[in-house]
Amino acid sequence: MQTDHNRIFVESIKRLLRRGAYSHLNKIVNKTHAADLAAVFPSLTVDQQQKLFEMIGEIEQKGALFSELDEDAFLELIEVLEFDEIVRVLESMPTDDAADIIGRLPEEKSQAILEKMQAAESEEIEDLLRYEDDTAGGIMVPDFIALREDVTAREAIESLQKEHLDVEMPFYLYVVDEYGKLVGVSSLRQLVVVPPDTPLKEFMTTDVFSVQTDMDQEEVAKIVARYDILAVPVVDQTNRLVGIVTVDDVIDILRKEATEDILKMAGAGEEFIETKSVLKSTRIRLPWLFASCIGGLLASVIIGHFQTSLSKLAYLAAFIPVIMGMGGNIGIQSSTVVVRGLATGRLHIKDIWSSMYKEISIGFILGAFYGLLVGSVAQLRYGREMLALSVGLAVVCSMTLAALSGSLMPMFFARINIDPAVATGPFVTTAIDIISVFFYFVIATSLLGL
Amino acid sequence: MQTDHNRIFVESIKRLLRRGAYSHLNKIVNKTHAADLAAVFPSLTVDQQQKLFEMIGEIEQKGALFSELDEDAFLELIEVLEFDEIVRVLESMPTDDAADIIGRLPEEKSQAILEKMQAAESEEIEDLLRYEDDTAGGIMVPDFIALREDVTAREAIESLQKEHLDVEMPFYLYVVDEYGKLVGVSSLRQLVVVPPDTPLKEFMTTDVFSVQTDMDQEEVAKIVARYDILAVPVVDQTNRLVGIVTVDDVIDILRKEATEDILKMAGAGEEFIETKSVLKSTRIRLPWLFASCIGGLLASVIIGHFQTSLSKLAYLAAFIPVIMGMGGNIGIQSSTVVVRGLATGRLHIKDIWSSMYKEISIGFILGAFYGLLVGSVAQLRYGREMLALSVGLAVVCSMTLAALSGSLMPMFFARINIDPAVATGPFVTTAIDIISVFFYFVIATSLLGL
Repeated sequence: MQTDHNRIFVESIKRLLRRGAYSHLNKIVNKTHAADLAAVFPSLTVDQQQKLFEMIGEIEQKGALFSELDEDAFLELIEVLEFDEIVRVLESMPTDDAADIIGRLPEEKSQAILEKMQAAESEEIEDLLRYEDDTAGGIMVPDFIALREDVTAREAIESLQKEHLDVEMPFYLYVVDEYGKLVGVSSLRQLVVVPPDTPLKEFMTTDVFSVQTDMDQEEVAKIVARYDILAVPVVDQTNRLVGIVTVDDVIDILRKEATEDILKMAGAGEEFIETKSVLKSTRIRLPWLFASCIGGLLASVIIGHFQTSLSKLAYLAAFIPVIMGMGGNIGIQSSTVVVRGLATGRLHIKDIWSSMYKEISIGFILGAFYGLLVGSVAQLRYGREMLALSVGLAVVCSMTLAALSGSLMPMFFARINIDPAVATGPFVTTAIDIISVFFYFVIATSLLGL
Repeated sequence: MQTDHNRIFVESIKRLLRRGAYSHLNKIVNKTHAADLAAVFPSLTVDQQQKLFEMIGEIEQKGALFSELDEDAFLELIEVLEFDEIVRVLESMPTDDAADIIGRLPEEKSQAILEKMQAAESEEIEDLLRYEDDTAGGIMVPDFIALREDVTAREAIESLQKEHLDVEMPFYLYVVDEYGKLVGVSSLRQLVVVPPDTPLKEFMTTDVFSVQTDMDQEEVAKIVARYDILAVPVVDQTNRLVGIVTVDDVIDILRKEATEDILKMAGAGEEFIETKSVLKSTRIRLPWLFASCIGGLLASVIIGHFQTSLSKLAYLAAFIPVIMGMGGNIGIQSSTVVVRGLATGRLHIKDIWSSMYKEISIGFILGAFYGLLVGSVAQLRYGREMLALSVGLAVVCSMTLAALSGSLMPMFFARINIDPAVATGPFVTTAIDIISVFFYFVIATSLLGL
């Protein structure tokens, strides 16, 4: 639905541009949400982008567009904009968004922009740029409402009317002591409900969740999601309030991390690459396939080792795919459950033994079921009991060991602090290929006396 | 971090329960967030759960605990609670959460509870239960602030002080006409900033996003995420305001959908099953493996067909795993990129041709690279040019066709309205197994003249 709507929107923008219907376009551009406008830009030529951009009346809307554009689209657009215009737009943006954008620019360009910007604004941005990108400090907004605890509800409301007009999330009022340390929180809601002369300290909540600047952004997102809050205050190591992380940024983080996890498990890079070029996608995927190539070649060495048995009983080869396939698929099931469990916090590395025990049991039960099935098919087809038994046992072995390694490997990687999503994909399938082929031939040659 | 903290918390609760340190426990229970308390419950016996539950002083805290508990844990707990107590707690809860819980209970029990509840409350709940679970109507809260457009800022603030005290998201004030139809939105922030005598219609925003009760919850979540809003109003077919969906529920939906997509692609069910029993997990995974079993058996039929060639040249079998593995892995990469692209709205079924073209190109380039590599290894090992050439060409074929089917299948399933995540996993790997083996043997037997 959403995407259909976008497509129609892109088509009409393009048509209006072709027709030169600028006054009509002007109206549309200034009535459209920046997120929707940003979705159109990648489908336009740079000239067309520049035309649309110049039509935007409010500078805040231009800033919102900067934030909403993909990195590639943004870098393309600013090439054709005037330097002074870029600086003006950045100055009008919320500090965290401006810092994000400047952090992505080439060193040279970002320095030039920071020098040109108003001192106060550029200092705040440089402060933000000191924090790692994916920490609470890197994603926080330095604009928030902080008041002292003896301020009354009326005074607080007055201060909202005079200052703090550009605060992004004006629903929480943070209460700080004389050193700027966080001591409580209140809400705009409470301000209008209590008698006007009540000081903040009498109705503020002192039990306030906060995070430190160096906390990983995923942890921050989990806290906001877990406690259903709209913003979480960020403090430095001395508990001084330095910013807030808002729920809209948390949503972006959660979605991005989920996509990253999915892509990493498949060995298809970290960021969504469908929009990237063929060569870029190829480069990203190439190394992940290397593990499976090595695994496959090792399996070929193992099979080569049993060459004499194979030439005596050629149809032994016929069951290689089903044994590898069954092992591979249950291995992916197990590793996916464990990787996602670790990512969402439902599983922990300390659960390693119970999780292993469970996966081995599941692998063995399913292995017994499918081993019987595949073994029976082998018996019906070739009528050799020992071959059927070998195939059946190989399926049991392969599936049990695949479930085991599928659950063990992500736990192992998490333990040595390697992202389990990125490491698991190629390793699990490679390991299973080798294990499956090895056990199949060992079992078959001994049972069949080859 | 978070999980470590939980574990320590569970241990100390258990220790205090064993010691019978009830006054200490009492303090802890009443100072802990319901989300954290809920995380402890599954590790306790039902008796211990009951003891902790009785210690909770505020009835709202009991309600919050009900909401935070997993379905299984909740059903276990209410078995030991008194019926009247359950009804009292449900009455104190936000209507959407109470409706969620009642909707999950067995028919008999839910009827008894609804009859016992206060009429107004139970009517609201029955209204909510009419909507499908996964639509805007099913997840909305029926408590919101709706005012008429001639109400002034001062009157609006007064009404906040007297009524609307239990509204979950008091940051937006919706403006409705005499028929209850949504005409605008304002914020608590604006109320305190404008002169007190200004009527709402002079400062409200008339450009308000809204969704209809039957919109799918994923679409609702995408809108809230896209436009960075804290709540979206829900209207019926006549544009009458009937509820709002808040950002905290949106976060839960986005996380759940991401987990579901990941698990479905791996054929490991829809819900997170790590916490479920071995037998339950086994039952969920069994059918997904069936596709790969059939695929493997079909591959064995194909190989059986080339049995004579195999007995002449046994080491032909040695390269089956690497050819299948390379195809399987690139197929998973392609299908993952497409499935996730469709889910996040970055790809659309109409992009089918451009996406196919891209994937074939990537598959061919990577296939050429790895085909050369694997072919060279084959040449070094066996010193037969035609074997090396066959293996190399089979890798190119397998990887190109795998990338093609990996991108085509999810698109195809999306087109016929079958969830691509659920259908793609087993089908892609099965198709690739068969394709890889078939092309390998066709190429090898013709090149080697077997």
